[in-house]
Amino acid sequence: MKILGLDSSGLVAGVAVVEDGILLGEYTTDYKKTHSQTLLPMLDALKNMIELDLNTLDAIAVASGPGSFTGLRIGSATAKGLGLALKKPLVEVPTLEGLAWNLWGTDRVVCPLMDARRNQVYTAAYEFVPLGEEFRLKTVIPQGPADIDDMLAKINELGRPVIFLGDGVPVYFERIKKSIEVEYSIAPAGNNRQRAGSIAALGMVYYAEGKTVDAADHHPEYLRKSQAEREV
Amino acid sequence: MKILGLDSSGLVAGVAVVEDGILLGEYTTDYKKTHSQTLLPMLDALKNMIELDLNTLDAIAVASGPGSFTGLRIGSATAKGLGLALKKPLVEVPTLEGLAWNLWGTDRVVCPLMDARRNQVYTAAYEFVPLGEEFRLKTVIPQGPADIDDMLAKINELGRPVIFLGDGVPVYFERIKKSIEVEYSIAPAGNNRQRAGSIAALGMVYYAEGKTVDAADHHPEYLRKSQAEREV
Repeated sequence: MKILGLDSSGLVAGVAVVEDGILLGEYTTDYKKTHSQTLLPMLDALKNMIELDLNTLDAIAVASGPGSFTGLRIGSATAKGLGLALKKPLVEVPTLEGLAWNLWGTDRVVCPLMDARRNQVYTAAYEFVPLGEEFRLKTVIPQGPADIDDMLAKINELGRPVIFLGDGVPVYFERIKKSIEVEYSIAPAGNNRQRAGSIAALGMVYYAEGKTVDAADHHPEYLRKSQAEREV
Repeated sequence: MKILGLDSSGLVAGVAVVEDGILLGEYTTDYKKTHSQTLLPMLDALKNMIELDLNTLDAIAVASGPGSFTGLRIGSATAKGLGLALKKPLVEVPTLEGLAWNLWGTDRVVCPLMDARRNQVYTAAYEFVPLGEEFRLKTVIPQGPADIDDMLAKINELGRPVIFLGDGVPVYFERIKKSIEVEYSIAPAGNNRQRAGSIAALGMVYYAEGKTVDAADHHPEYLRKSQAEREV
């Protein structure tokens, strides 16, 4: 089973190819270039480096939101284009689940925080539960937009050690330090932002569970209206 | 603080750049090409993609062994060349610690297994201990070459849940299943092989602790003699 993963939901642009238990390749940048300048050139470079025939893919997994509106549109458009051209299904991996997957195997609660401006975050809380020799993600607090202080209060109510990650962490770090009452950690560079490798790996789990959509039917999950729509 | 990470200790070739808490870029392949064909072209591609001026690096972190003799020599030669040309120090990150760092934040024992042929593995066992908002690796069983059955016996003696990873896992999977008496898990694609992002991130920790060497003084840590030397 071979899955291409794409994530351009935030500042990171990433592509990755997973085949069964192996990451064949991953290319990630977190840089000021726009995703329209990076995502396809990175896919093309990786494809050539690992001599990937796109027709051998089983599916295309994409970080399906929440995230930046423009970033999600670029990721979704790329995934849809590839899926339609190659006649392959898409696997929609919620961005927050992909982030949490970076911390595969922790016993702590994982709380991704994506900055949504004005004290709002896109967030959720997950835990890893063993399933045979693997782990599966289990939702502890469902994803949604939330006020950062409300989310921290919910994390405190859980009363369990927590690991925070995501681009909301530096933005709300002082709020976290001030309000958090449980043991907490902050994920380090390498694990604290979106990874296409996680989208591909979690996408493989969902593909095996039959959770696919036709490319034509895929839409990103914005979780709230765009600023332009909100201000109509 | 900006660190370049290199890992070509096994089948994976990887380059990554970490700046403070952010992975600026990472390029990984696990493919049949030789590292001499991949490592420098990948570094060059990543450098251009993130417009990296190599002179702005603080240090070069390299997976310093154990691993494949040829792979380690290519990684070390590349790191030494860059360090000498740029007048930057090197940070030697033990390959097994870099592998364990992939599972940052787990409460379980982490046991990397690198296949060394003939029932031998390069292995160690680590745990993550909290330090403020971060975790540090702590050695539970020191690194070394070991007979796979001896290592599994030591893991059983620990009596704690364990996560295995590394290219030795598929090779000795039946032995693991047969002998292991503690709760165990197998790390998935994306976290189960060498990652230059982990070398760079852990290298940043060691750099901050002053653990650097001059490029001229760096040598890979093979942990045992090469087959040619053993058979003299």
